[in-house]
Amino acid sequence: MSDLPETTAEAGAAVLRDEDGALRADVVTRVRDAIEAADAGTLRTLVGDLHEADVGDLLEALDAELRPRLIALMGPDFDFTALVEVDDTVREEILDELPPAAVAEGVRDLDSDDAVYILEDLPRKEQAEILDQLPSLDRVALERSLQCPDDSAGRRMQSEYVAVPPSWSVGHTIDYLRDNDELPERFFEIYVVDGDYRLLGAVALDVLLRTRRPTRIEELMDAGRRRVRATADQEEVARLFERYNLIALPVVDDRDRLVGVITVDDVVDVIEEEAEKDIKALGGVTGDEELSDSVWTIARGRFNWLLVNLATAFLASAVLGLFEGELQKMVALAVLAPIVASQGGNAATQTMTVAVRALATRELHDGNAMRIVMREALVGLVNGLAFAVITGVAAAAWFRTADLGIVIGLAMVCNLVAAALGGILVPLAVDRFRLDPAVSSGVFVTTITDVVGFFSFLGIASLWFGLH
Amino acid sequence: MSDLPETTAEAGAAVLRDEDGALRADVVTRVRDAIEAADAGTLRTLVGDLHEADVGDLLEALDAELRPRLIALMGPDFDFTALVEVDDTVREEILDELPPAAVAEGVRDLDSDDAVYILEDLPRKEQAEILDQLPSLDRVALERSLQCPDDSAGRRMQSEYVAVPPSWSVGHTIDYLRDNDELPERFFEIYVVDGDYRLLGAVALDVLLRTRRPTRIEELMDAGRRRVRATADQEEVARLFERYNLIALPVVDDRDRLVGVITVDDVVDVIEEEAEKDIKALGGVTGDEELSDSVWTIARGRFNWLLVNLATAFLASAVLGLFEGELQKMVALAVLAPIVASQGGNAATQTMTVAVRALATRELHDGNAMRIVMREALVGLVNGLAFAVITGVAAAAWFRTADLGIVIGLAMVCNLVAAALGGILVPLAVDRFRLDPAVSSGVFVTTITDVVGFFSFLGIASLWFGLH
Repeated sequence: MSDLPETTAEAGAAVLRDEDGALRADVVTRVRDAIEAADAGTLRTLVGDLHEADVGDLLEALDAELRPRLIALMGPDFDFTALVEVDDTVREEILDELPPAAVAEGVRDLDSDDAVYILEDLPRKEQAEILDQLPSLDRVALERSLQCPDDSAGRRMQSEYVAVPPSWSVGHTIDYLRDNDELPERFFEIYVVDGDYRLLGAVALDVLLRTRRPTRIEELMDAGRRRVRATADQEEVARLFERYNLIALPVVDDRDRLVGVITVDDVVDVIEEEAEKDIKALGGVTGDEELSDSVWTIARGRFNWLLVNLATAFLASAVLGLFEGELQKMVALAVLAPIVASQGGNAATQTMTVAVRALATRELHDGNAMRIVMREALVGLVNGLAFAVITGVAAAAWFRTADLGIVIGLAMVCNLVAAALGGILVPLAVDRFRLDPAVSSGVFVTTITDVVGFFSFLGIASLWFGLH
Repeated sequence: MSDLPETTAEAGAAVLRDEDGALRADVVTRVRDAIEAADAGTLRTLVGDLHEADVGDLLEALDAELRPRLIALMGPDFDFTALVEVDDTVREEILDELPPAAVAEGVRDLDSDDAVYILEDLPRKEQAEILDQLPSLDRVALERSLQCPDDSAGRRMQSEYVAVPPSWSVGHTIDYLRDNDELPERFFEIYVVDGDYRLLGAVALDVLLRTRRPTRIEELMDAGRRRVRATADQEEVARLFERYNLIALPVVDDRDRLVGVITVDDVVDVIEEEAEKDIKALGGVTGDEELSDSVWTIARGRFNWLLVNLATAFLASAVLGLFEGELQKMVALAVLAPIVASQGGNAATQTMTVAVRALATRELHDGNAMRIVMREALVGLVNGLAFAVITGVAAAAWFRTADLGIVIGLAMVCNLVAAALGGILVPLAVDRFRLDPAVSSGVFVTTITDVVGFFSFLGIASLWFGLH
């Protein structure tokens, strides 16, 4: 047993992925060959027993035109849950190719949250066509979810849950669970509702299992159970799961009636998604860029950000342009100016990164904003002084002019303090206007450090050396 | 009921936080006043029934010297789980102030994963002192966890779990759960082990509840249950939870014997932590910087990154220095050069951000690396051509020199292609050396774009205008 890999599952899964967790190329090749040979039998053997997440990764690894063919060949053995696991672009391409009847057949057996996830980005007409082919109970649940705002609790919830009245005993509840074959595929707690389906509380399954049969549910239930409105944003939902270590969260309508439940596995995806959006936004990439996008889509998406940056770069250069005379008289200034700007830009990015994250996690708020601004200003001053000395000595030695060292040192202090203040005040201001600080802070902040960097360095130099 | 807030819990929690989810200032003030008046009764009323996460946030909102006093005043009513919820720096300060006996008393009742989390960063001597005061069974479990590597599955697991032999019936298992009062506080599945405690499978609680009493556990259990070695990295664990939508994951030793279980609520924190680390690393901030750190700690932490950047800024300036003659003859070059470098830096950051994230989530791997490199190069070329035209026209108009437009346009194409290649190849190379691409890619990449930007612009200008 000592040569077990770090993580193991069935024997099949062990050969599906290499030690880094990436799909093995030979598995992909075998699947590709089976699709091209239209060999449904081999395909079922290779893919039929895989976890939906593995099927999703496999779909992404295949060429685009093979993906719908795999689904067609697998027929009813294809688990549509796999489509939840692929990139949006990939899913849309696949759904475009499949006939609506096949999609309706495929989503019929899914939990409603998965079905909504697959349907939500389809054009309205196609959506209606598919919904029409579903049993009316399923259709109503899906339509209710789809009417909720994008990225809301109502969109992420599943409509399948277990609810019992408070008067039932533990024994009665367990018997009900044993006899009922309409239960959700997985559940982690049962909900207690009154005659109008208003949520009274919840009972975790381990509590139910530990308790003797005669005990009444209302004695067991957690009546202060946290709940969320269907209209709440998914980011808010994710914060509640994180903060209170939840496994499931009941979703209620505006009259506190239970309409669904969000489970932690969906929230894990939301958390990953939200962090991903912040990372990309800070890097100047739109949140919906995906690895499977075409060159053209990606180039266009990134163009806008670069265009804004170009404008700010010209603005910074205009500041340099103000000092053309000085630059001509003393070319060392042209050589050194980018150092001041670059150091400021990097320091500002540090502060801004911390501020944007702390705002996203609600760690930074009105109550401590003043303290954090002061602290950042001090950090800027401390590092400004440190780098004033280092840069000053280096510049003075390079150009054999002590005065040049003093000038660049002074400019460095100015710019690192400006960087610190810009790095924290800009995200705070952007957040105050209810915009996403991750998306729009960067441009302002680097403009500040470029302009202040160039202006302070060349301005001080101009005065110090009497170049004007 | 229509004026319910979006999320509600007990009445108390509704007034604890404002609509953004931040702690309300007046609550913090009342707690502060109670501590300063040493009024344990009021403090218990205010804090006693709060969720541990709320107590954690409250601790962070208090001045540092009040925190240990709150814990002392609350006495046995203080739930040490709250210490898991605070920043590392805050926790260390608090633990420094508390006598080891009080800490031992406090961690005794915790799940082992929480106890380990509190103890792991303490100095060895203090750790031993606290462990010595615990019952031997608890001590052994904690010591085993603490011996596992930092950030491993063994560190994050809890040693409390429910395990039964395969021969038991459902009825026997439920009776066992009802009669046993040594069960973990919460559990989501039970594990099936042989006589040597080797893991045979798992049964989800909902499966147990749906099944009639005579059925044997071995008929129910999922024998292919995914498991993880105690030495596996927590990031790997998080990927498994995400990919396979797990709620709990059994942890085994090198002989496949069950030693603990990791639950999804801990993994949610790991995912958040890992995303946070990537975001901070990309922004040039060390992963362990926290909002509660002192000016000095933060300034020192950020200094190193800025120092490396300063070196690369000097390198880029040295390239400018090579062209001193040209800059003097044509000062417009000094004014425009930063535009080429800045645009390259931003384009490279876009590519690098996408690459670093895709590497972290294993979406980018050997199998598709070549395709992604080609795609990024094309994106660089497309945007390079677009910005060559825009920048060229703008520069030509500004300095009324058409040739300057052509020169900056050519340099722009060169630098955006270099940016694209650098942005993707550097993270891939860093990853190949098993280093974290988020931490070290940035410096290399912006050095490339600065150097290529300055060199191509001034080199082409020098040739074009015959300035050399």
